[in-house]
Amino acid sequence: MTLDPLPETDLTRHRRLRDQGSLDRADLEAILDAGFVCHLGVVVEGRPLVVPTVYGRHERQLYLHGSVASRSLAGGAPVCVTVTHVDGLVLARSVFEHGVNYRSAVIHGVARKVTDPEEKLAGLRRLTEHATPGQWSYARAPSRKELAATTLLALPLEEASVKIRTGAPDDGDGPDAQLGLWAGVLPLTSAWGAPVPDPLLPQETPVPPHIARREGTRHV
Amino acid sequence: MTLDPLPETDLTRHRRLRDQGSLDRADLEAILDAGFVCHLGVVVEGRPLVVPTVYGRHERQLYLHGSVASRSLAGGAPVCVTVTHVDGLVLARSVFEHGVNYRSAVIHGVARKVTDPEEKLAGLRRLTEHATPGQWSYARAPSRKELAATTLLALPLEEASVKIRTGAPDDGDGPDAQLGLWAGVLPLTSAWGAPVPDPLLPQETPVPPHIARREGTRHV
Repeated sequence: MTLDPLPETDLTRHRRLRDQGSLDRADLEAILDAGFVCHLGVVVEGRPLVVPTVYGRHERQLYLHGSVASRSLAGGAPVCVTVTHVDGLVLARSVFEHGVNYRSAVIHGVARKVTDPEEKLAGLRRLTEHATPGQWSYARAPSRKELAATTLLALPLEEASVKIRTGAPDDGDGPDAQLGLWAGVLPLTSAWGAPVPDPLLPQETPVPPHIARREGTRHV
Repeated sequence: MTLDPLPETDLTRHRRLRDQGSLDRADLEAILDAGFVCHLGVVVEGRPLVVPTVYGRHERQLYLHGSVASRSLAGGAPVCVTVTHVDGLVLARSVFEHGVNYRSAVIHGVARKVTDPEEKLAGLRRLTEHATPGQWSYARAPSRKELAATTLLALPLEEASVKIRTGAPDDGDGPDAQLGLWAGVLPLTSAWGAPVPDPLLPQETPVPPHIARREGTRHV
């Protein structure tokens, strides 16, 4: 499938470090699909507020769990949602060339509160399955009352800025290469550990396969 | 050492999930010291912008590497800096009780551009040593020209909101415990991998001990 490129707008144009910018929608979707926690930015009385929350993606829409920030989103207020994966430290010969290998997506738009119960259920399902595949059909589904007590936001994936940095430091062919210092990347990886049962659980309760099989697998 | 508590203000008061809130300055400092990437939020022409950047801490001050967001910070504009560590998925009996174990710090304030060369050098040292202890004295220090080309921001650690969630799901003593489902936490850990040498490096260049010894150690 060929995806149309992300549009360059005043908000998403890469002004700095242009070589790290991507307008590839596949890159955007890969970054979003690899994580499950984003940082949601809103403006509250003229001041910025950035809070972490969980999300899921359905095609060209992001579903976000409502949070303290949701109070500020009435009336089509703009939001910024950023997802960042840190892949390693870039250790150069000079301090100046030090950096981070990372993948980030910065999404701009207006978040809509999902009110239709059917869309809300579908969105929560995406969100749950995004973090823990197989969990939606395993756990008890939300009751009507629980659904009403949950705030779910939807954000279209239209205006986004993607940045990716990979590989070695940039000063390997400059004068600092003569210093004889080691340079390279110290990778950072994150992985799922062994499931920790709730102490209140009867001892014989088996860990379901969809959870057990994640142990030791890599995240992002 | 006894630390004074963080002040409760309109911005930092915990309105939601109050039991997860902390006013303990030691919690704030521990969260900041465990990570090295934050999300910096600013307001640009009335819209929020959230970008990842690296930071270091010196006592009650945070130093942030300047970024695309720095352009918007002239004239004492307010910023919000958020640091989040995700520790695991909270898998409850009901979808509604699902959540995340995490530690987060949300800092509000006005960031100052550091212009004094001495403070700038000291701040960059903090930032470098924060991500890679031992690296400042190993790598080539910034030249006067490089120092001038670097944007460093300083943010006082005065107004901050800290949230921490740990432990099992909350529905272990409710009616859903009768469902017989497994519930607990799927931990997420991040760790440093084996150093990857720059391909342009002479083969015999040794990995310095301060980098080599991090392999396999846990991050955050």
